[in-house]
Amino acid sequence: MEQDFRPGLEGVIASETAISFLDVEAEQIVIRGYDLIELAQTVRFVDVVGLLIDGALPDANGRVKLEKELQFESTVPDVLWNILGYSAPHKNGMDILRTGISALAAFDDELDDRSHAANRRKALRLIAKIPAIVANCGRLQTGETPIAPRADLSFTANFLYMITGQEPVSENEAAFDQSLIVYSEHEMPNSTFAARVIASTQADIYGAFTGAVASLKGTLHGGANEAVMHLLLEAETADGVEKLIKQKLAAKERIMGFGHRVYMRKMDPRAMLMKDALAKLSDLNGNYDLYNMCDRGETIMQQEKGLYPNLDYYAAPVYYLLGIPIDLYTPIFFAARASGLGAHVIEQHENNRLFRPRVKYTGPRGLHPQV
Amino acid sequence: MEQDFRPGLEGVIASETAISFLDVEAEQIVIRGYDLIELAQTVRFVDVVGLLIDGALPDANGRVKLEKELQFESTVPDVLWNILGYSAPHKNGMDILRTGISALAAFDDELDDRSHAANRRKALRLIAKIPAIVANCGRLQTGETPIAPRADLSFTANFLYMITGQEPVSENEAAFDQSLIVYSEHEMPNSTFAARVIASTQADIYGAFTGAVASLKGTLHGGANEAVMHLLLEAETADGVEKLIKQKLAAKERIMGFGHRVYMRKMDPRAMLMKDALAKLSDLNGNYDLYNMCDRGETIMQQEKGLYPNLDYYAAPVYYLLGIPIDLYTPIFFAARASGLGAHVIEQHENNRLFRPRVKYTGPRGLHPQV
Repeated sequence: MEQDFRPGLEGVIASETAISFLDVEAEQIVIRGYDLIELAQTVRFVDVVGLLIDGALPDANGRVKLEKELQFESTVPDVLWNILGYSAPHKNGMDILRTGISALAAFDDELDDRSHAANRRKALRLIAKIPAIVANCGRLQTGETPIAPRADLSFTANFLYMITGQEPVSENEAAFDQSLIVYSEHEMPNSTFAARVIASTQADIYGAFTGAVASLKGTLHGGANEAVMHLLLEAETADGVEKLIKQKLAAKERIMGFGHRVYMRKMDPRAMLMKDALAKLSDLNGNYDLYNMCDRGETIMQQEKGLYPNLDYYAAPVYYLLGIPIDLYTPIFFAARASGLGAHVIEQHENNRLFRPRVKYTGPRGLHPQV
Repeated sequence: MEQDFRPGLEGVIASETAISFLDVEAEQIVIRGYDLIELAQTVRFVDVVGLLIDGALPDANGRVKLEKELQFESTVPDVLWNILGYSAPHKNGMDILRTGISALAAFDDELDDRSHAANRRKALRLIAKIPAIVANCGRLQTGETPIAPRADLSFTANFLYMITGQEPVSENEAAFDQSLIVYSEHEMPNSTFAARVIASTQADIYGAFTGAVASLKGTLHGGANEAVMHLLLEAETADGVEKLIKQKLAAKERIMGFGHRVYMRKMDPRAMLMKDALAKLSDLNGNYDLYNMCDRGETIMQQEKGLYPNLDYYAAPVYYLLGIPIDLYTPIFFAARASGLGAHVIEQHENNRLFRPRVKYTGPRGLHPQV
């Protein structure tokens, strides 16, 4: 009956799910039966939202309907900007996002309705509103007026427009859309697990998402993409990357953006796709400096540590070339992942069992207070 | 290598811990070597805070020092009342608390310091400030001015004073203090697990606590104590309790406050202690109506379902007799549990392994987008 203690629940099956699966042998990220990489090469992020939340890829009409639904829900209540404006001392976009999602719960009349239809609407509301919060984090910090969503743009173009203040060219929109797809869902990472653990008490979806933001903020999770960009900027050149990584390895420091609990011996397939996107954007800009820096870092880490880049390693320079402030990389990761998280909370509520594990106690026994 | 899938991780060892352990065979809740019930009968909540956070029961000087430390940290920044005031539409104290803890992160200069000393200070700050937020939830909802902590009262008397607006008599303070002790720590319930899962990404303690509030809000977890009180008020009399429980059982509705994943065949020892506290308060008030109602419910549930009361079942009427608004029962549970959660986050950060389990995939394979 007794199972071995596995630190971090490594290899332990925590849930049944029909949403996604990492097939490490076949090098495939399976999303409701589809290969995530194939999806990223053939459909758009909004289609993946439909696939995750509704269980099937929408047809052309379905896509238009879903995009309108997201657009309709994309405006956040004005009072939220007041609430978040007070959080100006927040040094981190993830802190603002965490407080924002928690506060949004107050404005959802269906908060306590756990039906499938209500959970679906709440998930879409969150997927629609989170980009507006994320994109305006910087403006909230500096006291500028938040930019409102534009109804004439696609979901993805609008998201990038709210971040940069400029309507994106189609190449930039395509690269950003692809990044949202590869960030959308990934089986049971810590943040998804946190959301399911919380949802299993029959807590509402806003609470589950709030916990997931808290998790994704950690440097061992989503925080990695920002750390990668800071390293690249510090290194300045390809030679600089080689020197800096070797220095850090000699000092036994951890290099972010490499390795993965699940992909042990191969490159994360999502990283390969983002490396291609980085090449395309470098071509568009006529400047391969950042690409060459990343490529050198990849080679060095393979030689020195036998580690391969994960998604964060190549998403970071893509976001940099798209003109996105570094502080938003992890919040954007969360905005994309909201689609997968929504699917997981819906699934958890529909086939629920409270998470309540046990511990291995290592402390003393038999003590009594001296009174 | 492959382990069985156990829904809800029932019986699975998720962590090593020296903080606490439920010894079901010995009917004992072990807190750093002490019996929780013996602690509740002999020491005060502030001592238990010291035991949990610092690893040992404080001596007389240590208790005075710790109580001063908590008092010094008990004032929340004024701007937090502005932030939470905007959340007036929040229908639930737990929503206000979740947003409040998330927003508090912005005002902690040591937010990103993961050292033991900084983590300890942040834990004490949270334990000190959460009562002020909890106690003022109702005033925030109605737009009244929040009550500030009073420096001349003990931690527990001050908490009860901020809730009721009146300095408590010693019997009430003692009953409330005892309830805080029995709610302080309980091994690995869902909210503690959520906090450790989140902290394992190296996320900060505010994020871990925010996720724990989200979890505790769920009706399958902390929400139960409020549900118990609503049932008692609806039933009005002991005969009413019998009738209502039988009606609900016939309709296959769940009766909150009974049974526990871990205590299957015995009464939760914490519930016994709160039943005694309820008797004392009933004596003080010269009115045993509520006690008799609870006792009848206990008998009926044992006869009909073979289920025993858990802590929430007897904490609810105790809080009612202390004049505490029902909407605050779960937030108070959290305020007490903050002491255990602080210990768990500190422990997790000091011997960390990222939580990242796997799934059993039940969906389709081999699909391709039609393009």
